[in-house]
Amino acid sequence: MSLSMYDASVPVFQRGLGNLDAILRKAEEHAAATGLDLAELAGARLAPDMFPLTGQIQSATDSAKFGAARLTGTSAPSFADTETTFEELHARIAKTLDYLASVDPAGFEGAQTREIVQKSRRGERHFVGTSYLLTFALPNFFFHVTTAYDILRHKGVPVGKADYLGAF
Amino acid sequence: MSLSMYDASVPVFQRGLGNLDAILRKAEEHAAATGLDLAELAGARLAPDMFPLTGQIQSATDSAKFGAARLTGTSAPSFADTETTFEELHARIAKTLDYLASVDPAGFEGAQTREIVQKSRRGERHFVGTSYLLTFALPNFFFHVTTAYDILRHKGVPVGKADYLGAF
Repeated sequence: MSLSMYDASVPVFQRGLGNLDAILRKAEEHAAATGLDLAELAGARLAPDMFPLTGQIQSATDSAKFGAARLTGTSAPSFADTETTFEELHARIAKTLDYLASVDPAGFEGAQTREIVQKSRRGERHFVGTSYLLTFALPNFFFHVTTAYDILRHKGVPVGKADYLGAF
Repeated sequence: MSLSMYDASVPVFQRGLGNLDAILRKAEEHAAATGLDLAELAGARLAPDMFPLTGQIQSATDSAKFGAARLTGTSAPSFADTETTFEELHARIAKTLDYLASVDPAGFEGAQTREIVQKSRRGERHFVGTSYLLTFALPNFFFHVTTAYDILRHKGVPVGKADYLGAF
């Protein structure tokens, strides 16, 4: 009747980032076939005060990275948010996947009740592990993966829900 | 080290739908203040072959409803996808929340290994409970909630990530 905190986080992030990486490849194929400018696509956004595609992918990878680190009480590697090209976005996803693969499932012992403090511009948010995972880490991760997808769809890239969900 | 299948599904859907309902209210306030046409907003979409706002909310509520029903091996109530107004979208969310509140947590006994068959236009997908929750129900739910939010942001509605995540 239960699932582990590891299973509900790291493999979910790995799957979502793998799907996102494949979606970016389809965007590149579409751009190559139609002459769409990849730099324009990388900088595309849905509203003037929302992150562009690059920022959505930086945020999606950060959500995954910090999710794993905070639930295990460890530190995540620091990534500068400097990506501007698709090649760099793939590399960002790849190094996040490398990090996630290195996270020891045994480190999730006690994650359910671990106290997690998250600092942001708005101040501190206090969680225990389960509330952090279910009310912040997972919703935030899927927000940025979906918004990256939505930006590409809005710009005419022919991807579909099956690409977002991935193979079954 | 573990969390229950109930806690990882029903309260997550309830929270996401509550936040979505509040986001719709902010869109209505914005429309009232600026003269933006609510019917146009309800029909807005990010790409010609994506669902409009109404369809995103129908899909978000369906993801939640079917998530709870399939994990408990029960039937979900049937909702006709006929909503066109904000009032009807609020009612759709409200009846989904009523249904979720009626789902007995004890019905999740054995949900982790329950065999779930999902039929779609593409054929049948076979899952066990955990894979259904983590690779389909949750990603699909957040996809539609986020895309509803993204449509509103794209149309200039002044909501932010804090509205999507909800209060902590």
